[in-house]
Amino acid sequence: MKIDVFKIEMSAPDDVRELKKLIDAGEVDPGEIIAVLGKTEGNGCVNDFTRALSTVSFRSLIMAETGWSEAEVSKKVAFVMSGGTEGVMSPHATIFCKHEDGAAGTGEKRLAVSSGFTRDFLPEEQGTMAVVEECRRVTLELMAQAGIDDPADVHFVQIKCPLLTSERILDAKSRGKDVVVHDTYESMGYNRGASALGVAIALGEIPAEAVSQETICHDYSLYSKVASTSAGVELLNCEIILMGNSVNSSSNYRIGHSVMADAIDFKAVIEAIQSAGLEVDKYPTDQQAKEIVNVFAKAEADSTGYVRGRRNTMHTDSDINHTRHARAVVNGVIAAIVNDPMVYVSGGAEHQGPDGGGPVAVIIKR
Amino acid sequence: MKIDVFKIEMSAPDDVRELKKLIDAGEVDPGEIIAVLGKTEGNGCVNDFTRALSTVSFRSLIMAETGWSEAEVSKKVAFVMSGGTEGVMSPHATIFCKHEDGAAGTGEKRLAVSSGFTRDFLPEEQGTMAVVEECRRVTLELMAQAGIDDPADVHFVQIKCPLLTSERILDAKSRGKDVVVHDTYESMGYNRGASALGVAIALGEIPAEAVSQETICHDYSLYSKVASTSAGVELLNCEIILMGNSVNSSSNYRIGHSVMADAIDFKAVIEAIQSAGLEVDKYPTDQQAKEIVNVFAKAEADSTGYVRGRRNTMHTDSDINHTRHARAVVNGVIAAIVNDPMVYVSGGAEHQGPDGGGPVAVIIKR
Amino acid sequence: MKIDVFKIEMSAPDDVRELKKLIDAGEVDPGEIIAVLGKTEGNGCVNDFTRALSTVSFRSLIMAETGWSEAEVSKKVAFVMSGGTEGVMSPHATIFCKHEDGAAGTGEKRLAVSSGFTRDFLPEEQGTMAVVEECRRVTLELMAQAGIDDPADVHFVQIKCPLLTSERILDAKSRGKDVVVHDTYESMGYNRGASALGVAIALGEIPAEAVSQETICHDYSLYSKVASTSAGVELLNCEIILMGNSVNSSSNYRIGHSVMADAIDFKAVIEAIQSAGLEVDKYPTDQQAKEIVNVFAKAEADSTGYVRGRRNTMHTDSDINHTRHARAVVNGVIAAIVNDPMVYVSGGAEHQGPDGGGPVAVIIKR
Amino acid sequence: MKIDVFKIEMSAPDDVRELKKLIDAGEVDPGEIIAVLGKTEGNGCVNDFTRALSTVSFRSLIMAETGWSEAEVSKKVAFVMSGGTEGVMSPHATIFCKHEDGAAGTGEKRLAVSSGFTRDFLPEEQGTMAVVEECRRVTLELMAQAGIDDPADVHFVQIKCPLLTSERILDAKSRGKDVVVHDTYESMGYNRGASALGVAIALGEIPAEAVSQETICHDYSLYSKVASTSAGVELLNCEIILMGNSVNSSSNYRIGHSVMADAIDFKAVIEAIQSAGLEVDKYPTDQQAKEIVNVFAKAEADSTGYVRGRRNTMHTDSDINHTRHARAVVNGVIAAIVNDPMVYVSGGAEHQGPDGGGPVAVIIKR
Repeated sequence: MKIDVFKIEMSAPDDVRELKKLIDAGEVDPGEIIAVLGKTEGNGCVNDFTRALSTVSFRSLIMAETGWSEAEVSKKVAFVMSGGTEGVMSPHATIFCKHEDGAAGTGEKRLAVSSGFTRDFLPEEQGTMAVVEECRRVTLELMAQAGIDDPADVHFVQIKCPLLTSERILDAKSRGKDVVVHDTYESMGYNRGASALGVAIALGEIPAEAVSQETICHDYSLYSKVASTSAGVELLNCEIILMGNSVNSSSNYRIGHSVMADAIDFKAVIEAIQSAGLEVDKYPTDQQAKEIVNVFAKAEADSTGYVRGRRNTMHTDSDINHTRHARAVVNGVIAAIVNDPMVYVSGGAEHQGPDGGGPVAVIIKR
Repeated sequence: MKIDVFKIEMSAPDDVRELKKLIDAGEVDPGEIIAVLGKTEGNGCVNDFTRALSTVSFRSLIMAETGWSEAEVSKKVAFVMSGGTEGVMSPHATIFCKHEDGAAGTGEKRLAVSSGFTRDFLPEEQGTMAVVEECRRVTLELMAQAGIDDPADVHFVQIKCPLLTSERILDAKSRGKDVVVHDTYESMGYNRGASALGVAIALGEIPAEAVSQETICHDYSLYSKVASTSAGVELLNCEIILMGNSVNSSSNYRIGHSVMADAIDFKAVIEAIQSAGLEVDKYPTDQQAKEIVNVFAKAEADSTGYVRGRRNTMHTDSDINHTRHARAVVNGVIAAIVNDPMVYVSGGAEHQGPDGGGPVAVIIKR
Repeated sequence: MKIDVFKIEMSAPDDVRELKKLIDAGEVDPGEIIAVLGKTEGNGCVNDFTRALSTVSFRSLIMAETGWSEAEVSKKVAFVMSGGTEGVMSPHATIFCKHEDGAAGTGEKRLAVSSGFTRDFLPEEQGTMAVVEECRRVTLELMAQAGIDDPADVHFVQIKCPLLTSERILDAKSRGKDVVVHDTYESMGYNRGASALGVAIALGEIPAEAVSQETICHDYSLYSKVASTSAGVELLNCEIILMGNSVNSSSNYRIGHSVMADAIDFKAVIEAIQSAGLEVDKYPTDQQAKEIVNVFAKAEADSTGYVRGRRNTMHTDSDINHTRHARAVVNGVIAAIVNDPMVYVSGGAEHQGPDGGGPVAVIIKR
Repeated sequence: MKIDVFKIEMSAPDDVRELKKLIDAGEVDPGEIIAVLGKTEGNGCVNDFTRALSTVSFRSLIMAETGWSEAEVSKKVAFVMSGGTEGVMSPHATIFCKHEDGAAGTGEKRLAVSSGFTRDFLPEEQGTMAVVEECRRVTLELMAQAGIDDPADVHFVQIKCPLLTSERILDAKSRGKDVVVHDTYESMGYNRGASALGVAIALGEIPAEAVSQETICHDYSLYSKVASTSAGVELLNCEIILMGNSVNSSSNYRIGHSVMADAIDFKAVIEAIQSAGLEVDKYPTDQQAKEIVNVFAKAEADSTGYVRGRRNTMHTDSDINHTRHARAVVNGVIAAIVNDPMVYVSGGAEHQGPDGGGPVAVIIKR
């Protein structure tokens, strides 16, 4: 197995020209694409339809290039779009391709990626143990698929999960069912949290018996250090992309990770870079920065309203959602360190890293 | 002359309890306060009334503590409130006190601060050469007041300038006059730009003849490296606080500065720290960070829509003003470096540093 | 008792010039002001400090004009500022003055107004039965004060209630207490709802035993038809203004009310006008509209996300709070009917009228 | 010629299920669709990609149902999506179908609709006389196509025009060209204004020689009473739908219009209803309201900041764009009158009706 990674810029959510160029140039075989992980320029909250627009645009291109039907593409490729490109964050997509070359690995641990899907969830199942359990199950399947035995070799598990809308809540009610929370914006958090807990159980980060419905979005001492989950209106199931290092991979890429303790924890970013294999002294040189393909991080407003003992206004700002504030900060800090604003920062880190912080993963090419 | 600097937290724009405590504890003599430089938690744009609320709150406290009338306080103390505390930025105020101890300076250059006011501007004068000229004149006066001969010893000139409202535009029209721009939000930029150009001329950064009405907010190759200007609805003139180092000062504080080339230029932040007198290796140690009293920086969305060659969406986001995006990023980057989110970042850097960047000044205590 | 009512425009939250003019002209005796009911131009949500700025501005003027201390003014005058002037809504204040002329009423029922205060609430009491009970108690006191025996003669009870901030939540936690809800924005709804239920019990609109902690912000079939409650960060207790008609009043004004079934129920507005004593045919003539002094209404996004069977996006819009959408609509509808955008519409109508609707009261002068 | 009109609800910008149902039921022949006029739930400003998502969704459905290529559909069907569904406005689309039945008209004037396209515009042409001239030319062609001789029989001309983005501005600069305005948001106004002036000239509402580059977005005394223009990021040309009444049409629908003088001018709405052929007394009865298929109106914040002599804050609100405020109000007023929140209100009425007002058209079925 050989994994290739391409980061492409997007001038709009439906701009897939850069991928088209890579295909035309023979650098990407459209039939080998297994995942598209995008940052799109919506608000990243409930009514962000840039995610759907990007998904339909990439899917259409792959359909046209492969001749596959929509159903076939949807089964073979995971499209995980995360909305919100605040501050200097640059809209982009990361394309993962898998080439089954039959070659044995190099003996070194190299980037391995797999992707898959849970079943669809009913509105009343969203944000519940049903999501936890399904994400746990699929995460284990994806580890096996990626040829990773040791959970310590899993460095990032990206999940796209659904959210509740007014229409979906009414649908549940019409069938005599209640939903986990009636606020559509809050439903995003419940789904993100439940998905992350599923990963944490699968990887042995927390024991299965520690998690119950009451835990979800309440006991934040339980979390995964590698899950990154993002909610979107455009799907009803969870799409999962698992990334790690495997001796079975002959990829030119490696991945590492760390956990940011808060939104300005730049030292964790440096640790993640080091974890991926770059030996940096305090911060990367310009030359080293060029080896960094992308950084994937979660951003979140600390629930206390304080960072390093100082009050902030992310939770009391009724004009801008706190996830938008948080993404701007975390992206800015990472961009400064790696000399590139085109890094992936996704908001809402419920059960993903400690309160106010979150996982940060780095892919390097060398 | 001895200058003291106090940074106090604010739990709301009208929270002046921390200053009251300092006065009650004898640390601050209310009669020696010359300037209050605040970051308040509004949107930092046209309809941000948190600036006015903070001003009235601090003024009332000083009136009560000194027995001075409102007019007396207004003449003796410059209140410069900058709105917008996006991301992790912590609302706070920096209080400057001047003690005329008659003592000669130490021979070392130490912090010197002076403050003053331009005349009121008519609506039709806002954003014009009238503002440029008045700011130039007062800046020179304040240099003299602060005992600074060499413009190179001026490290930060903070100006609060007015803005146009619908009412003020109508007032000009009723007198048959036109204003420089009819969009109230844009008028903030014109006033900030004109004020900064006045400083630049005063300090010899650019020649007077280079600046004309056509230059303002058009030729951004002309800028000051130390001006920091901020517009507010609550005043009609400009309030100016000038900071530098002078051999006549016996202060325990020193100031330095640098210029950020863009919003994520953390190396400029480190240069500013070094310029203030701290010898840091790549970034400050926790111990060194404690000597940093405050950082003052300008933030701005690059007019090209690009940072380090990567597109961002600050200028095309119709939900959040680009100044809000920019402040979140610059504050995050500085907060990470100095281990403190309570630093002063003000938005809208027209003619203050290069396009997309801005001055950054650091006060240290040692 | 004689009640006078003055509606004044405000060019900013701290603009009290129109009241000053009325005082200077002898039309308003500052010692007779019992209530100031303002619409201020903030976002009407958590971080809206325009309410505090207006309060301090009006209070300062009355202090200066009467010679009373801040404490005295605060005891004698209720300042109820409601934030949010979306759409064409015009920022303004309504000043209520009470003249105890000793004269008997005219025998006709005429406008009677009284105002008072509950005790301060601890953070953990906010949004609970403690608020319900205190508002019930004070409402009954104010009916007696206004000389109103029959609850049917009470047409509008305006309450300003507190809200939770990050700091207040931490305070409760530091004392081992929990708060009713951890989201600061949601705490506004709980306090508005609890206050309204207190009024409803006092006026016999619902039986006391129907209300418990579980009811608040859950069972919306329970509501008052005359309560109008508004939350603000600037106070810790509830300030209450009760308006009705009384035979003991010799006022030149009368009040009436109705209940809007939804945000576009203009027929209820016409009913309220008729209830106040104007005989209108379908809608008021321009001449009749001039007799309308002000309209006071509550606005709310229907919790179903539907109005007249049509989906709207108020609840799924993550950029603009639903209260802001709702105020714009209700104000627009009323302004069209009464030929004046300067009418009072306040957002968040939990337990104030039916879901999606709210009370609407009209004061006429004749 | 026979025109049919269908109004369908949309649960999201990509929800085209209601059109699919109409096709499946045989009510709509997909090959007869000539225009889709949608209200989508984005912010209606620069970064509103819901318009593109709706366009791609409707286009895909029609491609699938007709077997036509994307190019063919694009040539035959005008997709005009207007973003922004503030307040109670309900996202929806109006589908226009044209059946060439060869039958002569009834002798009565009945609904006639035609649609077409201008050429693409370069970035430097946007908002200029090039747009004016092209829209003039195509409007005249569409009148002929619709069988309308007398400009007085044209009641609504809906245009979708492009806008500038950071990328498009850079493109112009790279070719040494300048654009009409550098603010992307403002470019929407220039394109809307230029398009409307083109219509006004075509219909003889203003003389061609009155319009020059200096006029566009400056002299608002020049305007069309029937143009409704809307800018979107998803196209580079103008798409035009012209609606009127023609004796050549055998449609069951009729159209009429009026001009709202300001955002709360409900009497103009009633006049438009009467103009379409319904005889209403003050406002429509519930029965009459059912005959109203849709209302099409433009909304705009008066540039003075005042409506009926009362100040509003639409232009000084830096959190919410004034177009969003204006749409909420105008939709609310119309929805109240016609008993239906699902009416089409589009923002930004430069040169479309008088300052602060705009055209309003009504289609009735009888």
